[in-house]
Amino acid sequence: MIQNSIEEQGLDDMELISRIQFDIGRKQLCQVDATRVAYRPRKSTYPLISVEEALNIVLQDANILGTEMVHFKKSIGRILAEDVFAKDPLPPFPASIKDGYAVLASDGDGMRLVAGDSTAGDVPKNKVMPGYCVRINTGAPLPSGADAVIQVEDTLLERGSEDGREELEIKIMTVPKPGQDIRPVGSDIAKGEMILSKGQNLGPAELGLLATVGVTSILCYQQPIVGVMSTGNELVEPTEDLQEGKIRDSNRTTLISQIEEHGYHVIDLGIAKDTPDAVLALFKQALQSVDVIVTSGGVSMGEKDLLKHVLETDLKANIKFGRVFMKPGKPTAFATIEYNNKKHIFFGLPGNPVSSIVTCNLYVIPALAKMSGNPLHQRTIVKAKLEKSVYLDPRPEYHRVVLQWLHDDPVPVASSTGNQISSRLLSMRTANALLMLPSKNRRAADDGEGLSRRRHDYRSFVIS
Amino acid sequence: MIQNSIEEQGLDDMELISRIQFDIGRKQLCQVDATRVAYRPRKSTYPLISVEEALNIVLQDANILGTEMVHFKKSIGRILAEDVFAKDPLPPFPASIKDGYAVLASDGDGMRLVAGDSTAGDVPKNKVMPGYCVRINTGAPLPSGADAVIQVEDTLLERGSEDGREELEIKIMTVPKPGQDIRPVGSDIAKGEMILSKGQNLGPAELGLLATVGVTSILCYQQPIVGVMSTGNELVEPTEDLQEGKIRDSNRTTLISQIEEHGYHVIDLGIAKDTPDAVLALFKQALQSVDVIVTSGGVSMGEKDLLKHVLETDLKANIKFGRVFMKPGKPTAFATIEYNNKKHIFFGLPGNPVSSIVTCNLYVIPALAKMSGNPLHQRTIVKAKLEKSVYLDPRPEYHRVVLQWLHDDPVPVASSTGNQISSRLLSMRTANALLMLPSKNRRAADDGEGLSRRRHDYRSFVIS
Repeated sequence: MIQNSIEEQGLDDMELISRIQFDIGRKQLCQVDATRVAYRPRKSTYPLISVEEALNIVLQDANILGTEMVHFKKSIGRILAEDVFAKDPLPPFPASIKDGYAVLASDGDGMRLVAGDSTAGDVPKNKVMPGYCVRINTGAPLPSGADAVIQVEDTLLERGSEDGREELEIKIMTVPKPGQDIRPVGSDIAKGEMILSKGQNLGPAELGLLATVGVTSILCYQQPIVGVMSTGNELVEPTEDLQEGKIRDSNRTTLISQIEEHGYHVIDLGIAKDTPDAVLALFKQALQSVDVIVTSGGVSMGEKDLLKHVLETDLKANIKFGRVFMKPGKPTAFATIEYNNKKHIFFGLPGNPVSSIVTCNLYVIPALAKMSGNPLHQRTIVKAKLEKSVYLDPRPEYHRVVLQWLHDDPVPVASSTGNQISSRLLSMRTANALLMLPSKNRRAADDGEGLSRRRHDYRSFVIS
Repeated sequence: MIQNSIEEQGLDDMELISRIQFDIGRKQLCQVDATRVAYRPRKSTYPLISVEEALNIVLQDANILGTEMVHFKKSIGRILAEDVFAKDPLPPFPASIKDGYAVLASDGDGMRLVAGDSTAGDVPKNKVMPGYCVRINTGAPLPSGADAVIQVEDTLLERGSEDGREELEIKIMTVPKPGQDIRPVGSDIAKGEMILSKGQNLGPAELGLLATVGVTSILCYQQPIVGVMSTGNELVEPTEDLQEGKIRDSNRTTLISQIEEHGYHVIDLGIAKDTPDAVLALFKQALQSVDVIVTSGGVSMGEKDLLKHVLETDLKANIKFGRVFMKPGKPTAFATIEYNNKKHIFFGLPGNPVSSIVTCNLYVIPALAKMSGNPLHQRTIVKAKLEKSVYLDPRPEYHRVVLQWLHDDPVPVASSTGNQISSRLLSMRTANALLMLPSKNRRAADDGEGLSRRRHDYRSFVIS
């Protein structure tokens, strides 16, 4: 018996498995033999680590990939890899803040002869002399000589030309102050001022700033390309009718849209069948084109849970963790893979629909943000009140809730979405946050905070 | 003199203007004559209304456009226009929650002969008889006869075949309870259950639910198509060098990315020159293809502020408001336009960069959400603490801030982004919320809440 002969040599379960693989794997594409079910390990060989440890491990390997030039109009959500400076001041000329008249403040209020106009986009032709004014509109350059603008609302028409095309004389009703309603050169942006700095997340206002200073091509951090794969012989495409024993694959749809929603490019890797060859073939193909592989299913203790074996044996992946003390999401795995002299990262998310969404939120999204150069890659954590009491689990739980700010209360209220079993995707419907519930076993250690089964403030975080 | 002859007839400013237009407008494309500057109104003829009134007016005209079938993978961010039901139960068969063995609970713990397996995706061949078990993995169908699953961690291998390919006998270490670790048919989703309802905003989890139930084409509300235009002779494209009197157009970039970020399709209408003909030509072209026109600039009191005149005179638009008591954003205008038997809506946002972003947030985004069928179109309002005191303005102010939740404090802290002049786009940089500051003149009416110049809780809302 193989078992006996191995035991005589003093080898443990894991060594036994790789020995069996070595013996018979030669002719296969994949070196993993999944048929030796009898001697598979009966308990996970991966230590159970905390969510915090797991996230730290993930973020350590979520490194910036490089930089590239990006057209500013395509840069929404990107992270700047350089500081950006203004080559011109804004405004580039002293500009009127109001529609009105450019005047000499020392002339005070009263009558002025109107010596033409200064309109936005033109170069003013006339100089403002004592007793004169020049009509001006918002944003137009201040004519030389003038040192104040008086808004049209504070003036009266005294005399106009017959055809109405010219104002000849106006009356100013208030006394202008020097500098009034004028934006001096560079008052919004000084020439040479740093308008955006390295690490800045580019939103609409930042794109507007780039447009303002005429910097239309910018150095940004590269964004990771993410491949998303489902695994399992039971899975069929959403378009298919259900045959006996089958269910429709929802995880790929959910994960792809979740990752795309955060602005990353996703490649749909399809469904891998539960055979070592199928999984390996798909991995090798994916590694040609993606930086990050996200799978769901195939990561817990089943005999068909091949992913980790294929990764370690055939791709020499470094599995950094294989279990996390959390609910849902315990069988979450993370690995790095060197392939074609390039480092890739791998997330093996659980197959249950809710587990895959929650762990994607907790690990994948912050990792992608960090890889994209975003210094603010951590999720936002806010305190919330519970609408109703909840039972605590031995594991720290990520309970799906709707977080709402009710009238005038600064603390939001978290309402549970109902039955939280990890297969029940309906518990994610309308959810906008995950409530971070502590382990019930931590209760005693929590200085009587009464964390169990009572209405209380917990920390929760917004999920999308 | 025209002025005299008109005054003799007892006409007011507005009638005067349209009379002049009537006289000379015949040969023009556009009936508005912008050259009669002398007799333009010197004060706005539009009443100053509150932000709340303005938003109510906007939302009243922001109506659903219609419905259309959408492929579920393209439906992220869309609003459902029908209820969606499950045609199959989930799971469609009693399914194992764990990797382990399907057993008869009444057999208790102890030895079992292993009669084959049930793996996910297959139809189990063997029945579980007393004294026997069937190996099963997570998600696999429960074989007939079995009424419980015992997880592999709670078992030991007693006897395996020599080649390791079969388990012959195992020992069960815990006593199984009937129903243990089994998901009954329909326990996640019942057959015929309504899984999504009309008005639901479709996010990643909702797309996953559609995939689960195999509904791959759904009725959604149509989304408005938005045209964005800048106006002003002073504007040049961001790619251009600055000539004297010119500035680069940033508003189009900002508004387009702001509206696209919320998931709407935008058509870039370019820059309209400050002539009635240019504005009218661009409007007529835009109305062929968009539902909503958003302009910036050309809405305040300048002689070149033509938009409203062209809208009213040539397009018979119904201008619903032209001024709002707010800072920034006072010269915000809103109109409806019937054109080719179709209702369009028009937002005339102010030209200052900050004013256009703020008013787009306050009016345009909620209107687009409501037109898209989203019942939750109002912005989220949360209470925040001020990091430092701020001065109140006579107008209610939308002060740009960074909102942060600091360690363990349920109330976020709002930090000002600095000088708030509406031309200074830098005040939007990094901002993630607008702080809603009340008018300082409301101070007395506020029951001594001390709203002025003191650190205090204000309401603010998240802007992106």
